[in-house]
Amino acid sequence: MAALPADIPPTLQDLLPKWAHFCLYAGRFVEEELGIDLTGRRVLVGLSGGVDSTALLLVLHYLSSRADFTVGAVHLDHQLRPESADDATFARALCERLGIDCEVETRDVARLAEERGVGLEEAGREARYALYAELRESGGWDFIALGHQLDDLSEDVLMRLIRGTGWPGLSGMAGHDPARGLIRPLLLIPKSTLKAFVTHLGVPWREDASNADPAMTRNRVRNEILPLIEKENPAFWQSVARLWRLGRVEQAFWAVLESEACEILDNSRLESLHKAQRLHLYKACLDRLGPGQALADTLFKLDEAWRDRRVGAVFQFPGDKTASVGSGNMVFASKH
Amino acid sequence: MAALPADIPPTLQDLLPKWAHFCLYAGRFVEEELGIDLTGRRVLVGLSGGVDSTALLLVLHYLSSRADFTVGAVHLDHQLRPESADDATFARALCERLGIDCEVETRDVARLAEERGVGLEEAGREARYALYAELRESGGWDFIALGHQLDDLSEDVLMRLIRGTGWPGLSGMAGHDPARGLIRPLLLIPKSTLKAFVTHLGVPWREDASNADPAMTRNRVRNEILPLIEKENPAFWQSVARLWRLGRVEQAFWAVLESEACEILDNSRLESLHKAQRLHLYKACLDRLGPGQALADTLFKLDEAWRDRRVGAVFQFPGDKTASVGSGNMVFASKH
Repeated sequence: MAALPADIPPTLQDLLPKWAHFCLYAGRFVEEELGIDLTGRRVLVGLSGGVDSTALLLVLHYLSSRADFTVGAVHLDHQLRPESADDATFARALCERLGIDCEVETRDVARLAEERGVGLEEAGREARYALYAELRESGGWDFIALGHQLDDLSEDVLMRLIRGTGWPGLSGMAGHDPARGLIRPLLLIPKSTLKAFVTHLGVPWREDASNADPAMTRNRVRNEILPLIEKENPAFWQSVARLWRLGRVEQAFWAVLESEACEILDNSRLESLHKAQRLHLYKACLDRLGPGQALADTLFKLDEAWRDRRVGAVFQFPGDKTASVGSGNMVFASKH
Repeated sequence: MAALPADIPPTLQDLLPKWAHFCLYAGRFVEEELGIDLTGRRVLVGLSGGVDSTALLLVLHYLSSRADFTVGAVHLDHQLRPESADDATFARALCERLGIDCEVETRDVARLAEERGVGLEEAGREARYALYAELRESGGWDFIALGHQLDDLSEDVLMRLIRGTGWPGLSGMAGHDPARGLIRPLLLIPKSTLKAFVTHLGVPWREDASNADPAMTRNRVRNEILPLIEKENPAFWQSVARLWRLGRVEQAFWAVLESEACEILDNSRLESLHKAQRLHLYKACLDRLGPGQALADTLFKLDEAWRDRRVGAVFQFPGDKTASVGSGNMVFASKH
């Protein structure tokens, strides 16, 4: 395992201006685009030891010296690879060097995958997010910071397009997920910039061999489809960042309407809305009833049935949810 | 050149039920989703002789026997390939067999491309659309019908994503372009269905060798990128159709706001709007001043300047257009 450098610049002021600006850019992103003031808050970094989360730990470390918030780290050992114990050792050593508390937990992800009948990637993700939720509660952490960056966002947008996600979901993962307390401070920064930053500091990182496994959709998107797209437009990542920003604005716009979502919508209310508004509202009503993504096609059919006043028509949605056309309203229900 | 079959079913009633339904589906798409009643109208088909426009001519021919509208055809010989005269002969022969008036025009597209300093594909497209505009005027055609289908739409959505198009533009080309009188009746039908229909009728079609030319972005998207995406989701075309429908609904929603677009927007009006609404309104105001696509990034910056009341700030947009922050308003102008 590559050794940590003899010295890492201790504070933001000790960085080259270029890299200090880079850290401040990430801080401004959190403040201005995610609308979060970290002052006085406790931020736990999900530290895999890969270059992204290593960069995130460093960025937040430097920002915290200036903006007065607390940084901690958590590393989850998935026990999937022989070298995973080394990853944990690396995470501990890096945190120790930066004076950051680091919690290391271990989960037998292979066993979890088998028990739950899901893939390793999904089992790993579930285990991580469950751990984050636990620690947020027990450790009093305000936010869980994740290392997703612009290359991840590009993959995410493509995967959403391929899956058939509507708008604004198509614009990609959230920068701030209030329900789970997640923030992604590096979301609009290309991975190459993160690599350059960590490399400049002489800090090593751990490579995750599973990133190359072509059995995973995400890796095929990353290694086969994205390179072809970037050949067509080398600034594709800018397109993605732009789309993401646009998606945030429109999400905020629709959220005003969606805040009135409820289990019964009166016809008089529905009649006052444009079809686009009704579709957003239906989706919000269904989302509120629990997990399960409503398909746009079914929402379209539901709206048609309502328009035609096909009283008694019932539509099924994933997650055992239904929407029914009543004589004076639309009713949403869940079996759970 | 493959010969036309000895007989082509003359009317909709003579088709197999399956194919009659297929034609009626296209008719319903025009009526319900594009909101166009063709009764009594004159529809000119842009007939290249490829499978898409051949299918379109046949579909409209069968629908016209039932719905009482007039179908004509126009074929433009681009003089780019030795066999282009054969394409024209095929177009004439097919129309004659169906009893449809067919106009054949010739343009030296290679020369046009050179004169205008653009690629052959663009010069060809410009020549076709210029001819359509001319004939619409001189021939009293209400609509120009084009053979774009769902595979084209999938390519279009991908190309828009790659280029960085916002929403709802990202959802793909219009089914109805009122300014140019264009309609695309087959837009949500997969090319494979069109091929099956034309093949079933025993009607031959002309292959365009330029469709395989990897020097064209569109062909690389079609032949390299789309197949990888369809491997991930064989029903990707359904995703695209869904996204297109969603885009239409939201476009109609924003159009209400955009109809008030003008050269001066008072601060009081802007203050009453959500940021998402302001961005759509800015774009509509700029669009109204002439050609040239406004970049979302610049619209974001413009909105920021307005919010910060940076009076005197001027933003440049493609097409020699500007937007300036005034003391009590925002002013849009064009040098043309």
